[in-house]
Amino acid sequence: MEALAEKLQELLSRQRWDELKTFLSQKNPMDLAGVLPSLPATEYALFFRLLEKSKAVEVFENLELEDQQKLLLGFRDEQVRDLVEHMSPDDRAYLLDELPARVAKRLVQMLSPAERQATSLLLGYKEHTAGRIMTPEYISLKTYLQVKEAFNKIRRIGLDKETVYYCYVIDEQRRLLGIVSLKDLVLADPEAKIGDIMHLDAVFVHTDDDQEDVVRQIKKYDLLAIPVVDREDRLVGIITHDDIMDIMEEETTEDIYRLGAVPVPEQSYFKARMFTVASHRVGWLLVLLLTNTLTGSIIMEQNVLLQSVVALAAFVPLLIGSGGNIGSQTSTVMVRGLALREVTFQNAFKLLLREVGIGLILGAFLGVMVVFWAHWLQGSWLVALAVGCSLVLISTMATFFGGLLPLIFVRLGIDPAVVSAPFISTMVDVLGVFVYFKIAGWILSGGASAPPL
Amino acid sequence: MEALAEKLQELLSRQRWDELKTFLSQKNPMDLAGVLPSLPATEYALFFRLLEKSKAVEVFENLELEDQQKLLLGFRDEQVRDLVEHMSPDDRAYLLDELPARVAKRLVQMLSPAERQATSLLLGYKEHTAGRIMTPEYISLKTYLQVKEAFNKIRRIGLDKETVYYCYVIDEQRRLLGIVSLKDLVLADPEAKIGDIMHLDAVFVHTDDDQEDVVRQIKKYDLLAIPVVDREDRLVGIITHDDIMDIMEEETTEDIYRLGAVPVPEQSYFKARMFTVASHRVGWLLVLLLTNTLTGSIIMEQNVLLQSVVALAAFVPLLIGSGGNIGSQTSTVMVRGLALREVTFQNAFKLLLREVGIGLILGAFLGVMVVFWAHWLQGSWLVALAVGCSLVLISTMATFFGGLLPLIFVRLGIDPAVVSAPFISTMVDVLGVFVYFKIAGWILSGGASAPPL
Repeated sequence: MEALAEKLQELLSRQRWDELKTFLSQKNPMDLAGVLPSLPATEYALFFRLLEKSKAVEVFENLELEDQQKLLLGFRDEQVRDLVEHMSPDDRAYLLDELPARVAKRLVQMLSPAERQATSLLLGYKEHTAGRIMTPEYISLKTYLQVKEAFNKIRRIGLDKETVYYCYVIDEQRRLLGIVSLKDLVLADPEAKIGDIMHLDAVFVHTDDDQEDVVRQIKKYDLLAIPVVDREDRLVGIITHDDIMDIMEEETTEDIYRLGAVPVPEQSYFKARMFTVASHRVGWLLVLLLTNTLTGSIIMEQNVLLQSVVALAAFVPLLIGSGGNIGSQTSTVMVRGLALREVTFQNAFKLLLREVGIGLILGAFLGVMVVFWAHWLQGSWLVALAVGCSLVLISTMATFFGGLLPLIFVRLGIDPAVVSAPFISTMVDVLGVFVYFKIAGWILSGGASAPPL
Repeated sequence: MEALAEKLQELLSRQRWDELKTFLSQKNPMDLAGVLPSLPATEYALFFRLLEKSKAVEVFENLELEDQQKLLLGFRDEQVRDLVEHMSPDDRAYLLDELPARVAKRLVQMLSPAERQATSLLLGYKEHTAGRIMTPEYISLKTYLQVKEAFNKIRRIGLDKETVYYCYVIDEQRRLLGIVSLKDLVLADPEAKIGDIMHLDAVFVHTDDDQEDVVRQIKKYDLLAIPVVDREDRLVGIITHDDIMDIMEEETTEDIYRLGAVPVPEQSYFKARMFTVASHRVGWLLVLLLTNTLTGSIIMEQNVLLQSVVALAAFVPLLIGSGGNIGSQTSTVMVRGLALREVTFQNAFKLLLREVGIGLILGAFLGVMVVFWAHWLQGSWLVALAVGCSLVLISTMATFFGGLLPLIFVRLGIDPAVVSAPFISTMVDVLGVFVYFKIAGWILSGGASAPPL
């Protein structure tokens, strides 16, 4: 990548325009999109003028949003119009959505009527729905066409590489009847009727379906693209596999951030200002701080017990740490299982019981070890026993809540990934400290008929 | 899905074989694969006999591994041979890999020589490499062919739907020269030479490249498939977009599990036995237990201080909890940034400094709040001051280690996702408790020239 950037700069500084033009024409547009932002801003416009138009658009579509915006500001009106006019409607809708309203409006006014209509159609759907991410560019065929006539239509339209591999068969009301792949057309008799070779079991989504459902359908049926229909079952667009991969990545980042108790940022996290990031993250931390008021109060109430057996304090980090870890293991597995539909409402109860069983096994094993460890660390068997018993109970509770909470959240329509490690840890902190001091109080104050220490 | 299963059972119980055959032929193979496992085992073989062969293979390929194995055991030899012979080589390699060695060997011996060779080629590459996940089924063309001759070849071979959309142009030594898409062929003059219309800038991977790199290339260039070459640059196979989506999902699950300190299981987590799961998870917990020996010892050493100011114990959960949360927010963002290549060795140092800055901002803000909160909870300004100061320091340390450790791990060739929330929390526990008691000791024992309480 750096070699490419250097070569570009060298050709530019030597003002070899023809050589540069040939060089650019041989390069992959994705690679060019990768190095352009590292060049000085004054050279951007120059490069775009040297690229042939269709390639310029492809490079532009593959730039980061911020670089697209920077570029648009540096261009003359007709250049801007050219680029934006030829972008695919879904990429354009995404760009317009992120631009300041004033700039976006001016750009939309520059577009041709057809492109303007395509854009406003997409912008009319809610974010993260199939309607918003689809492209209205696809090839539609009628049942009465012959295969060779279909080829003529494809040659005449010659759409983008992503959208050409399936053709959609529709009736007079634009309702979806079936699908013909380019492979079907190639392998078919040129005289055959489209209606006779089309597949009837077309998988499709609705405009207001969530993009996660779209991903699931495309993955399940191994599709290159999926058609999108409106409420009257009319075909309005398609979503292609390359957009699906971007969405999968975006959804993964969201899940991972939620599980780490990091709010999902509007723009790339690494580009936001430091204070913005801090202010985003502080919300969760304040909630956790409030919860700790409970934990603190519970410990404060036990000050008589603590004063006589200071050693008890030494095991608080171990107990709440282990509880948090065991709980977040369970919630991680549950949240991921829900996302992959491995956990369903049919098997949820069984899996929850299983987790509690695992918590009991882990607690019993670790509890026995901890009794000896705690005795070695501070010398009292009674304190050690209190620590061990608490660990068994805390481990079991941690798996119970780590398993239950994601299920409750899904039921309430909340993303279960908010049951993050910090969330579970904090909850188990309160319960753990409470359980520990109750058990310690009972064992040490003679509940087990023995003197304190 | 349940409706489909019921309908199947009904047709079966009424022994309507012809009706069932027609019904099955209209259904999507993915849907059939979804419901078959819920039927009684005795009916499996029956269904497969009623499906036409190519569809039976497609249904079989889309079953879960365990269901595939169950089915194979229930079939007669020629049925097994038929199914396995017609599977695509990559799916077959995956199945054979998971079967008991004895069964796998018997199956390989049943295969035709060509299929046996294709399978052992794939099994010769390491797991998670491009060579292992590729399929050797693709269409290769020579430069001197005309477009219409290429069409004849495609029609003659008529490969799987996933592998037909790109054709690969090779020389006499099978070295990859370029790529022609089916769309290029459709739009080209039938008399044109392949060598004149092929794209020269073919993106490819090597057989021993990691599957994550394959995903990155396919995503970056929006490809439907990517060619795989060996060390002598000879074309040996291709990897298609549908396999890429499966790998993306698998890699995501691994990352999420690691971040939750859950070991990545061999088989689906929900199918493993309870004791197996517990024994897998216990490893991490033991490491964390050992670390807590340090935390416990530090607190034990402070027993004189603790006995005179028991209130100090009340803030241990708050401090180590907040430290863990702040640290895991940072490590989550870093680990994800590394996975998406947003964090590189060029910007790592800057981003680490930024995180420490964010930690300082968060610590300062929360620290001031905590001073008042801690005073309200227990009444001593000195204890409150110790808690506040500790929080500033712990927050800064947590972001520093949360940011630094993933970078160090990447440098050492270890998956940075092992820097999980539990990992960071436990590390910050030790440091946090140490810092807290040092500061408290200094402030309360007159270091700040004031009486203890």
